[in-house]
Parts: sequence; structure tokens; C-alpha cells
Amino acid sequence: MARVIIDMDEVMADTIAQFIAWFQREGYNVDPAALEGKSVQQMFPDYELARRFLYTPGFFRNKPVMKDAQKVVEALNQEHEVFIVSAAMEFPQSLIEKYEWLQEHFPFITWQQIAFCGSKALVHGDYMIDDHLKNLDYFNGEKLLFTSPHNTTIDKYTRVNTWRDVADVLLPGHQLFN
Amino acid sequence: MARVIIDMDEVMADTIAQFIAWFQREGYNVDPAALEGKSVQQMFPDYELARRFLYTPGFFRNKPVMKDAQKVVEALNQEHEVFIVSAAMEFPQSLIEKYEWLQEHFPFITWQQIAFCGSKALVHGDYMIDDHLKNLDYFNGEKLLFTSPHNTTIDKYTRVNTWRDVADVLLPGHQLFN
Repeated sequence: MARVIIDMDEVMADTIAQFIAWFQREGYNVDPAALEGKSVQQMFPDYELARRFLYTPGFFRNKPVMKDAQKVVEALNQEHEVFIVSAAMEFPQSLIEKYEWLQEHFPFITWQQIAFCGSKALVHGDYMIDDHLKNLDYFNGEKLLFTSPHNTTIDKYTRVNTWRDVADVLLPGHQLFN
Repeated sequence: MARVIIDMDEVMADTIAQFIAWFQREGYNVDPAALEGKSVQQMFPDYELARRFLYTPGFFRNKPVMKDAQKVVEALNQEHEVFIVSAAMEFPQSLIEKYEWLQEHFPFITWQQIAFCGSKALVHGDYMIDDHLKNLDYFNGEKLLFTSPHNTTIDKYTRVNTWRDVADVLLPGHQLFN
């Protein structure tokens, strides 16, 4: 049994899809293919508006779930010691929204398994699944870089493109998708 | 510079004083001296009512600050890498209240330094200041047991009775109180 630390935004929750939907509501058409390789700052037509979304009630509460995340996290939770660790502290209004989002979509995750922090340098474990180098770089264990448009040009850690890839690394032989 | 992990309830925030004040409002007189050596479950005249307080808006937001905590945490923050780690996840409505409480009373603590978790087994550092064995027992570094009525009979870790004692251990020679 390994301790697996899982990020929320852009790993469990499809933050990019949520941004695209919210920009669309404001009259912007964002082509997902055009986001690739861009930093979060360059990614969207209006960075100030994107920042404003992050402070708007509902943004974190209603994100779509990343494809196959529920199935794989549930299987990981049976095999490993799973913690959900989200850098939620920059947006304090997101705290309760993220908690409720987890309750809705990942009801098998108990409150004992959730941590909201400012810096992930504080946590330790065997594996960290995250889309940001700022989190992975300080981690003591194995680092799995979950693909997100902003990190596609980075070649530093083991890359997982999808939750199926995560299953291949952490649940070998489980054949969840057969 | 050491990484110092500091608990909130009964360490930075005077939870016992808050309980006594809220029980008083409900017509109960609680003698602080009578609480000593009792478990949290036995401590108060009505445990169910005490539990209800924990779910009532305002309980966490309006706790008194522990004597000398501001002065010592501010000095620690200049000398060490300080993280405030609170097991807030059992009471999700407390998340935003605890965040605002820190902003009000410890404005020098940035959001990067705050973590709200279910289990503190996740965090690592050099020192942990906490009143609960369930947190200290799993910690990798030095453990400082902050005195609270429920732990007065425990003789397992270095005891700190007050924030002056914390300063003696972690800020030797600083003479904050002279």
C-alpha cells in the first residue's frame, strides 16, 4: 500500500472545460486545441476575467469531473492510502465548494482524506499526481505529471495523459477498462 | 531555520474559553478548574450540546486568542518556516471561519502558510505544536504537547504550558517577555 496524493484542479476536476464554458457565457469562443503549450496567464482571451471567475461563487462547485477519474480514484482508494490535496487557500470561498464537490462526485472519500493547503511542500507521501511543477518539485516521493494544456512541453517527470494512464502505473494488472 | 507546524484549536485559539462562554449563554455554569484531566467527551455538562456548538455558525470565527500567541507566532514567523495546520475538515463550515479568524488575529500569516486537513499524518516538518496525541503520534519531527485540560495527565512528549514556554524552546535567547 502506497500513500497517493491527488490534486483536484485539472486532475480530478476539468478546470479547463469550466473556463471554456464560463468564457462562452461571456461571449468568447475558446478553441481547446489553441490552449496547448501556453501558460495559464496566456491561455485565455481575457486573463483578468479568468481571475474574476476564480472568485465567483459556483466556479469551483460546478466543475465537470475529469474523464474516468471517479472509477480510478475509487479503485486506488481500495488499494492505497489516498489523500486529496488541493491548493485551495488562495481562493478561500472555494474551500466549501471544493468540499461539497468532492462529497457529490467522490462520496467514498472521507473528510479524513482531504486537505486544503496553500503550499504542498508541507505534505509527504509515495506518489503525487499533479499538473503543476510548483507542487511536484518539492515532493519527496514519485511524481506523476498529469497532462494539462499548460504543461505539454515539460519533460521532467513521468507523464500521465489520462486516468487510464494513472491506473496503468498505480493499479497494474487491475484491468479496470477491459 | 526549522519548519514549525502549529495547531489552531486549544493552541492558538482558546476553544475551552469559547465553550465555557457558549454554555453560559445556555444557562450552564462551567468551572474551568473542574475540566482538568477529563476527556473532551466528559468535559462539559452536555456533550450533545457541545457538539452542536461545533456546527453553529460563529463558533470558530469568534474564539478568543490564546494568551501571548500573537506575539510568539509573529516572532517564530520571522525566525522559522511556520505553517498553521488545523484539522478543520470534520466541520466544513468552519473552513472559512478559521481562515477569517487567522486573517483577523494573525495577519502576518499568508495563505501559503495555512493548511486545513482531515488527518495531520500527511504533513511533515521539524516541530509540531499540538494538544492532541492523535496528531503528535504520527509526526516525524519533534513534538511539543501544548497543555489543555484534556491532556494534563499525559506524560509522553515535551510539554509546553503556555506560549512563553514555546518561546523558550523555539526562540531561545530572544527574551520576548523581558
